[in-house]
Amino acid sequence: MIKKIVLGLSTVTALMATSLIDEAKNAGLIAIPKSQSALLKLIDDVRNPITVEKTELGKMLFFEPRLSKSGLISCNTCHNLATGGDDGLAAAVGHKWRVNPHHLGSPTVYNAVFFEKQFWDGRSPDLEDQAQGPILAAPEMASTKEHVVKTVTSMPEYVTRFKKAYGENVKIDYKKIADTIGNFERTLVTPAPYDAYLNGDEKALSKEQKRGLKTFIDKGCVTCHNGIALGGSMNMLGITAPYKYAKIGDFRGDSNGMVKVATLRNITQTAPYFHNGQIKTLKGAIIEMGRIQLGTKISENEAGSIEEFLKSLDGKKPKIVYPTLPSETLSTPSQNIN
Amino acid sequence: MIKKIVLGLSTVTALMATSLIDEAKNAGLIAIPKSQSALLKLIDDVRNPITVEKTELGKMLFFEPRLSKSGLISCNTCHNLATGGDDGLAAAVGHKWRVNPHHLGSPTVYNAVFFEKQFWDGRSPDLEDQAQGPILAAPEMASTKEHVVKTVTSMPEYVTRFKKAYGENVKIDYKKIADTIGNFERTLVTPAPYDAYLNGDEKALSKEQKRGLKTFIDKGCVTCHNGIALGGSMNMLGITAPYKYAKIGDFRGDSNGMVKVATLRNITQTAPYFHNGQIKTLKGAIIEMGRIQLGTKISENEAGSIEEFLKSLDGKKPKIVYPTLPSETLSTPSQNIN
Repeated sequence: MIKKIVLGLSTVTALMATSLIDEAKNAGLIAIPKSQSALLKLIDDVRNPITVEKTELGKMLFFEPRLSKSGLISCNTCHNLATGGDDGLAAAVGHKWRVNPHHLGSPTVYNAVFFEKQFWDGRSPDLEDQAQGPILAAPEMASTKEHVVKTVTSMPEYVTRFKKAYGENVKIDYKKIADTIGNFERTLVTPAPYDAYLNGDEKALSKEQKRGLKTFIDKGCVTCHNGIALGGSMNMLGITAPYKYAKIGDFRGDSNGMVKVATLRNITQTAPYFHNGQIKTLKGAIIEMGRIQLGTKISENEAGSIEEFLKSLDGKKPKIVYPTLPSETLSTPSQNIN
Repeated sequence: MIKKIVLGLSTVTALMATSLIDEAKNAGLIAIPKSQSALLKLIDDVRNPITVEKTELGKMLFFEPRLSKSGLISCNTCHNLATGGDDGLAAAVGHKWRVNPHHLGSPTVYNAVFFEKQFWDGRSPDLEDQAQGPILAAPEMASTKEHVVKTVTSMPEYVTRFKKAYGENVKIDYKKIADTIGNFERTLVTPAPYDAYLNGDEKALSKEQKRGLKTFIDKGCVTCHNGIALGGSMNMLGITAPYKYAKIGDFRGDSNGMVKVATLRNITQTAPYFHNGQIKTLKGAIIEMGRIQLGTKISENEAGSIEEFLKSLDGKKPKIVYPTLPSETLSTPSQNIN
C-alpha cells in the first residue's frame, strides 16, 4: 500500500516536471542538444566551416598576445576562458591600462556563437566579424591590420598551419586571421545541468531550481532571455523605469536605443552585471531587471529562487590545452608598450 | 670494401661525438635526465614535496588573475607559458601599465627550478620564496597578502583543494599559497634535443649544432652557462668590458655587483636579451657576451654556429590544460584597477 502511494507521488511529480519542461520550451527556451552532430550543425557556418586545423590554429591566435601592440594582451586577457570567458571588470581595461571609453564591460565569449548579434550595441553579425574589432581598438589591443598580418606571417609555424587549415594558396590577411579566431570561438559551448533537464533528465535540476525556472517564466524574464543563449538578441533597456546606473558611461545602445541582452549561461561567473557592471550581485541584477524591464517587483525570495535556477546554467567548459606559440623570428614586429 | 670504409668513418664520427659529449660533461654541462624518477628527485624539495593535488592547485593559482589587485594580472601574464615563459618585453609591465622601475625584464619560469637563485639579483633562494614577490610588488600584481588570502579562501573550491593537498587542518596563508604556486613551477621542465644528445643519442644534434657546442665550450661560454639550466648561478656582468647598454635602468646587480646568469634553455623564445632587454637578436647577444664577459671576439660565423647549438635547447613544454577557476562569492574582494 505504501509502495503504491510512493509510486503515485512520483508519477505526479513526473507529470508536473514534464509540464514545466514543456512550459519552458513553449516560452522559447532551447537546450544545447546532447548529440555532437546536432550541436555542430548549430554552431557551424557554411562560410567558415569548423575543422580541427582551424579551431586549433584559432585557439593559438586567441591566446596570442603578440597580435596586440604591446605583445601583452590577447583575446583571452579580457575574455578569460579560466574565469567565465570575461574579465570580471565593470569596464574593460586594455592597452596602456586605458579603461573602455564607453565604460563597457567585456561580455563572455562562452556560448557567444548563439548570440544573434555581437557587441553590446549589436553592431556585428557574427564572431568572425566581431574578432576584427578589439584587436584594432586603441583602448583594447591597439594593433593595426598590418601589425597582425606581419606578426603572424613572420613565424613559419603559423604559415604552415594556415596552409593546412585553408590550403596551400591561402591568403593570410587580417580577415582570415579573425575568421580563424571566430572558428575557435564557435566551439566555446558549455552544456549545463539546465540542458540535461530540458533534454529530459528530470533529476538534473533541484526542486528549488525548478521553482526558480517556473518563476523565471512566470515573471516574464524569458521574454528577453530565451533561445539557446538565454539572451543574445537586441532589446530596449529601461522599458518600465530607467536603469539605476544608466548615467555611468555614455553607452545608450544602438541607434534605436537597443542593447544586447546578456546571456544567462555561466552568469554566476560573469559578475559584475549589466553593460557597465554597476550591479555586483546576481540577486540585485534580477530585482533591477524586474523593475526596469518588466515593471514588476521581484521579491528577495523570488530572486533567490531564480538565482538558484540560474546556477543550473553553469556549464562544463571545453577542455583547452594551453598552446605553445611559435618563436619570433627576425622579421616579427617589435612589441611596443607605448 | 666500401662497406668497411663506411663503417670505419661512422666509428670515427661516433668516437668524435662521444668525446664531445664527454667534453661537454667535463665542462659542467648536465642533461635533464631521461628517467622521470631521476628528474623528480632533482626538482623536488623535501620542504614542499611535489604531489598531483598541489601542482594542479598551483597551476590554478599561477593562472589566477584575481590574486592581483586589478583581477587582470596573473603570474602567467608576465611568465606566459605559451611564449617561452616570459613576456617578450625589455622591461616588465604590470598594474596600471607601470614599467618595471629598474627596467628589468621578466625571466622565464621554465626550468627556473634549476636556478641556484631567483630574481636577477638572486635575492631569493627558491621558487616558493620567489612567488611571494611579484604578487605584492606595486608595479607588478600590486596585491596585498590579505587580499590574496581573502580571495582564495572566499571560494569554496579552493579551500577544498587546499585541504586535499595539505590535509584538513591546512592553514591557507600567503606563504602556503606561494608554496603551492612554487610547487607547480617546479614541474615546468622542458627536455630538449640537447638533453637527448648528452644522454647518448648522437643523432639528436645536427653537425652544425655539434660544431656550435664545441665552440660554446672552447670560447668559454660554458664558464657561466653550465649546470642543468646552462645558467641560474650568480656572476659579474661586464668582466672584460662594460655592457653596451648598462646605463639603461638602475639595475647594478646584488650588493656585490653580481647578476643572475640567464638560462639558455628555450633562449630562442625569450628575446629580447639581458636583464634590461636591450639586445634583440641571439647572435648579437652571443657576440656581446664574448666581448664583455670573455674578452674575446666571437665572429659572425662562430656566433651563427653557437646560435644553431642553442636551438637544440628549445625544449618540449609540459602539456597544460587551461584551468577552469572557481566562481567568486559574495565575500570575494572586489577587483580594483586603480
